Amino acid sequence: MDHGLHVLRSHPQKPMAAVEDCLKACLDCLLACTACADACLSERNGASLSDCIRLDVVCAAACAATIPTLVSSGSAAGRAPLKAQLSACIAACSACEAECRRHANHHRHCAHCADACQICRAACETLLKALV
Amino acid sequence: MDHGLHVLRSHPQKPMAAVEDCLKACLDCLLACTACADACLSERNGASLSDCIRLDVVCAAACAATIPTLVSSGSAAGRAPLKAQLSACIAACSACEAECRRHANHHRHCAHCADACQICRAACETLLKALV
Amino acid sequence: MDHGLHVLRSHPQKPMAAVEDCLKACLDCLLACTACADACLSERNGASLSDCIRLDVVCAAACAATIPTLVSSGSAAGRAPLKAQLSACIAACSACEAECRRHANHHRHCAHCADACQICRAACETLLKALV
Amino acid sequence: MDHGLHVLRSHPQKPMAAVEDCLKACLDCLLACTACADACLSERNGASLSDCIRLDVVCAAACAATIPTLVSSGSAAGRAPLKAQLSACIAACSACEAECRRHANHHRHCAHCADACQICRAACETLLKALV
Repeated sequence: MDHGLHVLRSHPQKPMAAVEDCLKACLDCLLACTACADACLSERNGASLSDCIRLDVVCAAACAATIPTLVSSGSAAGRAPLKAQLSACIAACSACEAECRRHANHHRHCAHCADACQICRAACETLLKALV
Repeated sequence: MDHGLHVLRSHPQKPMAAVEDCLKACLDCLLACTACADACLSERNGASLSDCIRLDVVCAAACAATIPTLVSSGSAAGRAPLKAQLSACIAACSACEAECRRHANHHRHCAHCADACQICRAACETLLKALV
Repeated sequence: MDHGLHVLRSHPQKPMAAVEDCLKACLDCLLACTACADACLSERNGASLSDCIRLDVVCAAACAATIPTLVSSGSAAGRAPLKAQLSACIAACSACEAECRRHANHHRHCAHCADACQICRAACETLLKALV
Repeated sequence: MDHGLHVLRSHPQKPMAAVEDCLKACLDCLLACTACADACLSERNGASLSDCIRLDVVCAAACAATIPTLVSSGSAAGRAPLKAQLSACIAACSACEAECRRHANHHRHCAHCADACQICRAACETLLKALV
């Protein structure tokens, strides 16, 4: 993520550290959920993983939508949408983490995906508190 | 949107009408905001439209993320993420509508975009109430 | 899609009709593929639909990426990316259409999704020819 | 990107190294382009950066669409869409890199964004050759 972060740090309104942490966590979680959905589709017991795949898709979409709101966090106009999108990302990460954790003993990709969701949720919560 | 709606109606868990209305509004608003951002970039007074472009981008992303949460609304697992994403979409639409409305007298694309945001916000609010 | 199209038509560089047709087809196909993936996850024989779900996800992503390239088609700078993204959308629609067609007799959502992919592919091909 | 990569490596069809490199480059470029667009909107000479913002948006969308095609590269069904989307990503990165490079002396975010585009383009080209 080196070049992306360099761009961010040369933005006229350089974002605070909590925004940067949250961006990194969202990008990691976006990849984790996209890859976990595809991995679940390759498992023999794919049928029992349908809710896991669903929540992977929903969580990846929430993370993707959070990225531009974080990037424009320096603008006052985007403050209300940012807070609401962070809450949506927290809800998606929580639901996906809980479902992936249920399968963590059988599928390592679910265990790693649950970790990515947990970290992303925590980063969003930290930023949300800092914004109040 | 005919074929997309036909797919939706042949889903084993056929969604309620409010979900379908919300999907149509999100897709319309996604197009409106994407096109309004590009149109603003073509205007001579583009500099004064920077917050409008920003909110167009944020609102398009929120609408895009709401689509998969709506589509999986038949699954109990996705209920909490759906509600939170609807709230995020309402916040993004409200902010974008307010900013676009400020420029509606000078730019017809902003007037139409504000209308799309207003309708999408209302559709999300209606569904959110129905889900309680 | 009424308000989105009104925004597009009030863009300083009003796009040609083939761009508008392509946008409508991409939005329809985006919804069709997103809904077909979720519907497949609800089917009892979900395991045999894993490639269908995969291609639904890939095709929805290709359609989503094509939308901003179409919207900025009035700018000379975006011409090369537009052509390449149209080709990518054609490839994704073709692959998804072929896979969905295999399941069309058993699942009506796959039949409707294949139709959406076919129409989107044709709209992209028509525009690609018009751009040469 | 640690957890996302761990998920990827525990996928039943572990992807080759070139796929992993390409995913990292796409995620970096997605962030770079999203942040560069917002940074350009904050610059005083925003009007002269309209094509740069446009190509940032188009390139971010191309990178976003490439991610799921890369993740499902282990499935034979997705091979044709993957190749076409890699070509689309190469075209978007090339156009965005060229435009950002023009502004690199005045805006450091454009210089860093051009670097991210260059690396992403190279990673896509390397993978495309490996797939033939």
